[in-house]
Formats: sequence, structure tokens, C-alpha cells
Amino acid sequence: MEKATVLFTPDNLAVDVEPGTSLLQAANLAGIELVSSCGGDGTCGRCLVKVQDGYVKVKDGGNISPRAKKAGLVLACKTFAEGNVVVDIPSRSRLEEHQVLLDEQLLLEKDIDGAEGFSLQPLCQKLAVTLTPPTLEENIADWERLQTAIRSALSCSDVRISMSVLRQLPEALRAGDWQVTVGVTQINGCAEVITIEPGHTTSREVYGVAIDIGTTTVAAQLIDLVNGFTVSKKGSYNKQARFGDDVISRIIHASERPEGLAELHQTIISTINDLLAELLQPGNLAAKDVLMVTVAANTTMTHLFLGLPPKYIRLEPYIPLAAATPPVKAQELGINVNPEAYVVCFPSVASYVGGDIVSGTLVTNVAKDERVTLFIDIGTNGEMVLGNQDWLVSAACSAGPAFEGGGITYGMRAMKGAIDSVDIDPETFEVKVSTIGRCKARGICGSGLIDCLATFRNVGIIDRAGKMQTDIQTPRLRQSDEGWEFILVYGAESESGRDIVITENDIKNLLRAKAAVYAGIRSMLNAVQLEMEMIERVLIAGGFGNYLNIGDAITIGLLPDLPAEKYTFIGNSSLKGARLALISKEAWQEAQELGEKITYLELSAGNDFMEEFMSALFLPHTDMSLFPSITNVK
Amino acid sequence: MEKATVLFTPDNLAVDVEPGTSLLQAANLAGIELVSSCGGDGTCGRCLVKVQDGYVKVKDGGNISPRAKKAGLVLACKTFAEGNVVVDIPSRSRLEEHQVLLDEQLLLEKDIDGAEGFSLQPLCQKLAVTLTPPTLEENIADWERLQTAIRSALSCSDVRISMSVLRQLPEALRAGDWQVTVGVTQINGCAEVITIEPGHTTSREVYGVAIDIGTTTVAAQLIDLVNGFTVSKKGSYNKQARFGDDVISRIIHASERPEGLAELHQTIISTINDLLAELLQPGNLAAKDVLMVTVAANTTMTHLFLGLPPKYIRLEPYIPLAAATPPVKAQELGINVNPEAYVVCFPSVASYVGGDIVSGTLVTNVAKDERVTLFIDIGTNGEMVLGNQDWLVSAACSAGPAFEGGGITYGMRAMKGAIDSVDIDPETFEVKVSTIGRCKARGICGSGLIDCLATFRNVGIIDRAGKMQTDIQTPRLRQSDEGWEFILVYGAESESGRDIVITENDIKNLLRAKAAVYAGIRSMLNAVQLEMEMIERVLIAGGFGNYLNIGDAITIGLLPDLPAEKYTFIGNSSLKGARLALISKEAWQEAQELGEKITYLELSAGNDFMEEFMSALFLPHTDMSLFPSITNVK
Repeated sequence: MEKATVLFTPDNLAVDVEPGTSLLQAANLAGIELVSSCGGDGTCGRCLVKVQDGYVKVKDGGNISPRAKKAGLVLACKTFAEGNVVVDIPSRSRLEEHQVLLDEQLLLEKDIDGAEGFSLQPLCQKLAVTLTPPTLEENIADWERLQTAIRSALSCSDVRISMSVLRQLPEALRAGDWQVTVGVTQINGCAEVITIEPGHTTSREVYGVAIDIGTTTVAAQLIDLVNGFTVSKKGSYNKQARFGDDVISRIIHASERPEGLAELHQTIISTINDLLAELLQPGNLAAKDVLMVTVAANTTMTHLFLGLPPKYIRLEPYIPLAAATPPVKAQELGINVNPEAYVVCFPSVASYVGGDIVSGTLVTNVAKDERVTLFIDIGTNGEMVLGNQDWLVSAACSAGPAFEGGGITYGMRAMKGAIDSVDIDPETFEVKVSTIGRCKARGICGSGLIDCLATFRNVGIIDRAGKMQTDIQTPRLRQSDEGWEFILVYGAESESGRDIVITENDIKNLLRAKAAVYAGIRSMLNAVQLEMEMIERVLIAGGFGNYLNIGDAITIGLLPDLPAEKYTFIGNSSLKGARLALISKEAWQEAQELGEKITYLELSAGNDFMEEFMSALFLPHTDMSLFPSITNVK
Repeated sequence: MEKATVLFTPDNLAVDVEPGTSLLQAANLAGIELVSSCGGDGTCGRCLVKVQDGYVKVKDGGNISPRAKKAGLVLACKTFAEGNVVVDIPSRSRLEEHQVLLDEQLLLEKDIDGAEGFSLQPLCQKLAVTLTPPTLEENIADWERLQTAIRSALSCSDVRISMSVLRQLPEALRAGDWQVTVGVTQINGCAEVITIEPGHTTSREVYGVAIDIGTTTVAAQLIDLVNGFTVSKKGSYNKQARFGDDVISRIIHASERPEGLAELHQTIISTINDLLAELLQPGNLAAKDVLMVTVAANTTMTHLFLGLPPKYIRLEPYIPLAAATPPVKAQELGINVNPEAYVVCFPSVASYVGGDIVSGTLVTNVAKDERVTLFIDIGTNGEMVLGNQDWLVSAACSAGPAFEGGGITYGMRAMKGAIDSVDIDPETFEVKVSTIGRCKARGICGSGLIDCLATFRNVGIIDRAGKMQTDIQTPRLRQSDEGWEFILVYGAESESGRDIVITENDIKNLLRAKAAVYAGIRSMLNAVQLEMEMIERVLIAGGFGNYLNIGDAITIGLLPDLPAEKYTFIGNSSLKGARLALISKEAWQEAQELGEKITYLELSAGNDFMEEFMSALFLPHTDMSLFPSITNVK
């Protein structure tokens, strides 16, 4: 069969493919990365392209908006080249255009706090050891001689070694005249010698890397394990994004394609290796001196990182392969540090309450504080932990992608051109928006959407049920084919020249997202029979949290109506916890215990959550007594 | 430079080599294996060949007897082809001609004894597990679910798993409808899941292999770990023999040639893999069902088997790399059983008291018996353990190769044609010999030499110092260029047509060998301040022991003068111990403790041993009070 040539414009890149190849695959082959949040399943509706010429077959069933259809666009994943084709790719369908603003400051934070109560006792350390040389009378074997010295130095009974490190021992001992420097890892009460160098190496360089693997971004810190100082910090995108934006599409990719799991595994390893190279570069440090890696990630990311099949995370009753995963050698994963270095992942609590949450709970001392704390990380999933020193309960609610711009007509991630706040004159309904990067608006991101919803409600554009008040006198409110919509930015002011609007449907999606989070919090409180006001502090983790206006979030009923001073933004607590565990084996031990101690509340079991969810679908809530600070406008 | 062609006769095999290549190397290239007990160092004097034609350069310094020189022979390792050469190889220089009689019955024994007090609790077992399926309410992860079940089944708190086995877990659990059969290894208090199969596999086939790696021979048993029965047994030569006969030449090969250690390691692995194939063949069993391997070997063999550099075993103060070596996965060593199976080696006590001795001590219950026991294994080294339930001391003395036929003019190993007993008429001095295989005599082996020495002494051919009594009237006693010699077999009766003689020098070498063993025993007794008669039983291990006549051994002063009923031959106790550990984790644990409990007495430290050695150079001993049963003939 003859090959079909697919020519992509405006790039002018051509690629020959078998007839029947999707335009998405063809674009990948041509090296053009399209946005494909669902991983090519036709559900995200983002890989829009325009066929300019040639023969294609368009399959039904893709999620494409009437607006896009009318504009002559098709989904690249559902369109298949039958012969030679010319395809135009609009800039908004390109992945590079859609990447999240990588706020390294935010991903990485300045410095560790929450390390109170832990002393510097890293998971791996170098130990200078001086042995008595053997004689005919005292002829203990090399390894037993070294073991005895390490045991007494570390007060540790079980000292191990791999065969490949053991093989280096005799020459190292004799080259160093019975003085050696050993790298020793101590995990869960068991010590292992992972490096041996002759002599007392004066610098005793020993580094560790703490990594937070997020679904979207990956952040890492290189730590000097001698003094606990941060040597360098780096963040990057998770390159897995090309297999789908969210964990669900990645699980599907891993489970349903023969090489899917291997692809996702290799991609995150490559993401991390790129980061490692960047971390080591400034000081020209050697990868072999990195002797320990701690990783905090959600349950799915942990599975993919370790190459563990994540299939059943997604299928009821949502069971991970493992909560606490075994330590693994860097060489087994292909991580470019010392091959003998151990890589440890924080334990998960459940399929949707992962090691990142355990890490955050660790570093914020929730389990050591007498105050009842709500720890919450809002993204596609709202993950939360509630408790104090005596008890801990956790839950995850599927908020959907609205807060990340998904399912919203002009929704986008927090990147250049995204509207992040909205101000509306209650009299004239004139609108002032601010955008990230202070440039022309391209769309609206999560924090902008929350602000917009609160403002709409405050000035009376929508009622408590989210319905637009059509009697309002402003040309910005208009009816389209798909119902009522409000123009935030006129085409003359927007980047694309088109009006940026919020539709009634967008508002419905936002209501569902915020109701899910609030209902999750309420369900947890119900489970432990506590009232909302008994929460003594609220810790908001994750990148999204930092852009959130607490007042807005309370106004729309996303967060509980508590005094502002109870709220704290804690940034990337997942990375902070990973760093803490790296420099304190006691903290690592505590993380293991936390993984077992935190009770998981499955919200999809029982009716409680659904009832709470229905009640929370109003602004701010059906039960206004829960929001005493909110004055009810009409 | 032009190549030189070396033609070997009578094989008629030719090989092209660089000029300057040794005839030993050329023979190896041509696929002809020469005897080279020293590994090509020129010291064993065994690789004798005759250059028929062509140009060679013979280097000085090789250990070649005047007799061989006179016959026009050269050492192949010290002779280098300078141009085309024709080389004749006498049959006695060929390795295949020199292989030991492999008495499998002896290597393997019929059945285990010494397992008293141990119940069948194999180091690895299969466990059929039924799990409660997870629900939304009870949603523990797969691995934690399995762990809990195994913990309660085995009463073991620490249950581990490798990443590659863990990856198989979710599908196995669901394919078996939450019933799985797991292979679990329990070593030193820690359990590890090494296989997972869906369902309750009815047969629950699970096998283990016990291996005894000797310097010369390797023996193995395949054991059904469900009932502890022996499925099959096999023995073979240690293919490492081509790198030298004894541990010293192998250590030199491993330490001084760049690829030496790797060669020796690969060779023993290949020897074992061949044995495994033979073990599995009768029942057509699958290698993947072999889940555990125990290995008992001397310290050097253990090092080479694990690829650990043995260099310092040979150099004063004789320090092994490790006494207790870490368990290692079969796949890391390349052993053809289940790749996840663990291979464990018995701990050594010292460089010359190895895991084989610990294994023998274990299976003979020396450490649990109240009787003072002498456990002794005589070969090139005499290795011995003395003690009872309260204390244990060990030592090794270098007996040299005399008992294996080394350094004796017509010495040979116990193989076809070897004289194994000698009878001399005290009046006529007529000689009757018996040979292994009842064929024409080719030489004399260890047990024959001991018998010969005892008989010489009994009939007065030699005096207490081993000097020949030249006044004896027999044509068998004659003087040659090298001194006095006694003709055991006339050329007319021998295979080669030459007289088989014992020289005064041979006797000197034998005296040194027997004196070393006896002095070792005495030194141990001195160290614990015990008299010889306080030994309540003597256990003689190893292949040599079985052919030994106790009366002869006492007569020449090799073994202590104790009543015959105190002596027991225990055969291959090393293999028996390896088998016991395989089927009893308690026994394995005890072996670990034995490795630490047995005190090592270094005979080369202090003057005690040398004094004892000098006194033991007589027949039977300087101090006749030590041999009350021996009537002193003139």
C-alpha cells in the first residue's frame, strides 16, 4: 500500500505515514507536539487542527464543540489520513503554547521550615573508618572487620552490602592502609554500605536529591548531606504530559497500550535525569556523589516512576498495587546518580491520597500538633487530611479539571495571558481584568475563574444556583447558540481577536468542582463527628493554592467560612517533606508510620458525600448557616 | 610477523600461533587439555611434552625431574614455539587421563543422617494464600493485603519483595480470583516473596538445590522442598581444574591475570549449570521451579563462586574478603534456576577453614554433643574442628599434595590403575598390590601410599626416620641416580612397562604430609589443654577418608592412636550439611552461628605447631608414648 504524505503548516513539515494513521500520530512523527490532555482518546477536545487539502476520514464520537466544528476544525486524534493531506495547526493546539507557567520559586520554595524537632541524621552519610590491620593472631575477614566498625559507629546491628560493592573492599582497605570512607544508607533500621573509598576522603562529598513528581511539574533539590544545605534547585514539566494531562489518561495509556507503561516510566526517568544534570551542573558535581534519592508523588506518579502497573487505581474499588513500595537501587531505575544509591518513595494512603500528601503531612507536623488541622491540596483532585496528634483521616474528591481550565470555554492553565483576577463595577458591570504577564488576555485560569465566580455573585450577575440574571442591563450579557454567556474581554482587547466569555455551562462546571471539594471536607468532618468551626488551622498546599484569594474561595463556597488567620499557604509541601526525609532518617521513619496511621475515607462509598455534594452546588451553599460571614445578595 | 604452526601428535591437530606462544597455550588453542596443576607456572612439572621437530625456546626454572629431562621431555608451559613445531603429547600429560575417579556414591551418599532435631521447614516454601477481595470500604493496596496474609501465615514481621516480582502482583491476584500461591524465602529472619502464581497451584512444585563445591569435584542434590526428599543427585569435576589443581594456583590465576577472576567465576558457574541440567532432566523438571540454592565450599571456592577477589587468602596474614557472604539472587550469578531464587553460601571460619567444614560440623551435630569430637577433612589441606557443645576450635595445616599423589614419583589420584593397597611378605619382601579397577598398575594413590608406608615400616624396609634399610636382601631395593628406591611393580607388570618405585624422597614428602596433620591435631589439643585420649570420637570427612585404612593411618602416625570404634567415616558431610540447611531454616540459622562460634587457631603463628611438626616427622612419632598400640620394630 502506498504511503500518505502529511504536510503540516505553517511549519512546512512533511511526514510519510501508512494510510489510516491519525493526524495526532502523524504530528508526533513530524516532531510537532499537540495538546492532548486525554492522551488521544478524543475526550479532551484539545488537539484541534484544520484539514486544508487532501483525503481524510473523520471518526465520530470525539468531544468537539459546535463552535470548533463551525470553524472547520477537526480533532487530530479522530482524523485519519487516507491519502496526501495538508493540515494546518492553530497555535493554541500546540503543546508548547499550553505549558504551565513554571514558577520555580513556588515549586521549590526558599527554605525548609517544619524541620523542627528533627536533627540532621541523613538517610545516607559518609563515615570515615579506621580499622586495626589484621595479623596472624587477629585474622578476621575484611568484611566482618568493616562491619564491626560500622556497627559500633552507627549503633546498628544489621549492616549489609551488595556483592558488587563487596568486591571493591579488599583493595580499598589496603590502598587506604586500613582507613576507608564508606557511604552508608540507613533505611528502616537496616544499614547498607553502598560506597567504599580508600583513605579518609577529606571533602567527604555526599549529596542527596529530594524530588516531587507532580502530574504536571517535577521539582527537585540537591542537598549537601553533610550540613543539610540546599546546593541547587530545579523544576521542569513532567514530560509525560504528551500522554495525557491527568493521571486517568496516563493510567489508560499505561494499561491499554502494550508499551504504554514502559513509555511512561522511561519518560519520567528521563525528565528526572534532565533535572539531575541541571542540579549538578552549577558546582560541576559528580553524579556518583549523589548517594540517596527521596521521592514524593501521588499514587499514580509513584507507580509510573517505579514501573508498577497502575491499572487498578482507576477501576472500582480503586486499589493501588502497593502503598509502601520497597526501596530500589538507582541503577535498577536508570536514575543517573551513584548506581548503588537507594531511591525511596513516600508511602501512599490510597489510590488518590498519595505520597505527596503524606510528605506534606509530615513536614507540617499535623500528626504532632494538638490543634485540629485541615491540610488540603486542590487540583484535579482535592486531596485532604484532617486530624491532629491523636487521629488522622484523609479523603480525595474528584474536582475535575475546571480549576486547571479544563471544561471551561476559555479556560487555560496559569500561564502568560491567563486572566487571574476579575473586577466588575456593580453599577455599570464594566469589567477590569488582570492577566499573568500583563499582556493581552488569551483565556482564564483557575484563580481567575474563582475570582470571576465570586464577583459574578457579588454584583448579582448570577444567582445562588449559578444561573445568569438575564434582566441585568449590560451588552456584555448575551445569548449564543449554547445559552447565556458574559463577555469578560471584548475581541478588540483579546489576543485572538475573539470575545473571551464565561458561559452558564462554564459556571455549572465550576460549581461542580467547588462543591466536590467542600463536600469532601464536610464528609470528613461528619466521619469524625466534628463541626466546621472546630478546624483550628487550614494548610493549603500545591501550586494553585498560592494564587488563591481566600475571600473569593469562601464566597463561592469552595473553602469553609473560617477566619482568614486560620489559613496558611504552604506551597510545595511535598518537596519540603521529601527534603526533610532526606536529611532525617527519623522523619523518614515517621513518614512510614504516617502512611499506615492516616485513615482513608472513600467518598464514593455510602451516600454521605453525594448529599453533601448536592447541597454544595449552590453559592456558597444550600445551608447558609455554614457561611455566616457571607451576606446573601438576591 | 609470520605465524608458527604447532602440530600436536598423535592427535594430528595443528594450530597457528604467534611466535613466542607457549606450547601449553597452543595446546589449549588446539582444544587439547594438558595436566597443569599449577596453572602454567612451571612448578607442578606435569605438562610434559616431547618436541619432535622444529624450533622452540625452553625457558629455565621449570620444575622438571632429571628422569623426564633424560627422556627428552620438556614442560609445555616453559617451552615456546619459535617457528613451525611438531609436538608429541604423552597420554599421562593429558587432563582427561588424569581425572579423579568420580565416585558419585561417595560424593553424594545415600541418605541424610544428622538431621535429627530439625523439622522440615525449608528455606523456601510455597504458600497458598486466599485473600479477601477489596471493596470500596476495605481498600487496602494489593501488596499490603498480601503482606498481611503472609505475615500471619509465617509469623514473620518483615516481608519483602523485589520490584520485578511486585509488578506481577495485581494480575496474578485477579487472575486467581484473590487466591495466589507465593514462593517465600526465609533467610535470617526476613521473608521475601520471590514468585507469585494465580490460584492455588495444586502440585505446588518447589525445589531446592544443595551444592558442595570442592576444588576437584562438585556434587549437587535436587531436593523436593515440600517433603524434603531427594529427587536426583549428580557429581562432576570442577572445570576450574584447567586453571590449576589446588586453591593456591587458582588464587594466583584469579589475582594475577586481568580476566582471571572472571574466568574462574564463569567456569564454576558453568560447571554448576551443567549439573543443574542433569539434575532436572530425569523428571523433566523446570528450572523456574528451583527456588533456593545452598552452597557449601571451602573459602577460596566460595570467593570464586561469588566472583569475590580471593587474593589475600594466599598472602600473610591470610585474610578472606568475607567470612559470611550476603545472600545473592541466582540471576546475579547466572545460575540457571528461577532468576529470583536466592543462593546462600555457608560462612567460612577463616581462609583455610571454609563453609564446607562449617557445613560438616553442622550436620554432624558436633556443636550439640557433649562428647569431645575431632572432625577432620584430609586433602591438600588438613582441615579440622575440635570441640563439643561448649566450645569449638578449628585449624588448617598444609599437608601438601602428597596424599593426592603430588610430589611422589609415581603418585597419582585415586583413579583407574592406581595402587590402593600394598602387601609385602616380611620374609621374602615379595609384593602384592591391588589397583583401582583391577587393571595393570599405573601409579599409586593416597590410600595406597599410606598403606605402603605402614607396610614398609611393619616389615622393616624403612626405619622410624623413613630411611631405607639398605641391608635388606631383595632385588626390589636398588640405588638410582636420585638415591635409594623400592620397586613396587616391575615393568613387566605395569601399564607403561616401566618399574613403579617408591623413592626415599617420596617417603620424605609423605612424612611431611602426615606430620602436618598430626601436628595440627596436637596443636589444637594444646591450645585447649586437652590430652589426645580425651577425644571421644573422630569423624573423617571427604572423599579420601573413605579409602583410608585407620590401622595404617595410626601406624604411620597420621591419625591419633585411638580405639577403632571411636573413628567414623562420614563421607561428603559438606553436601549433607548443604542439604540440611535447605530443608531447615533453623539449621541454616545454626550454620550462621557456627561460623561465628568456631574459634580459628592459626598454626603459622607461634612455635607450637613447628615443634609438633618436627616431632611428628618420625614413624609414628618421636614420642612413642603417644602411640601405645604400636610395637616398635627396629
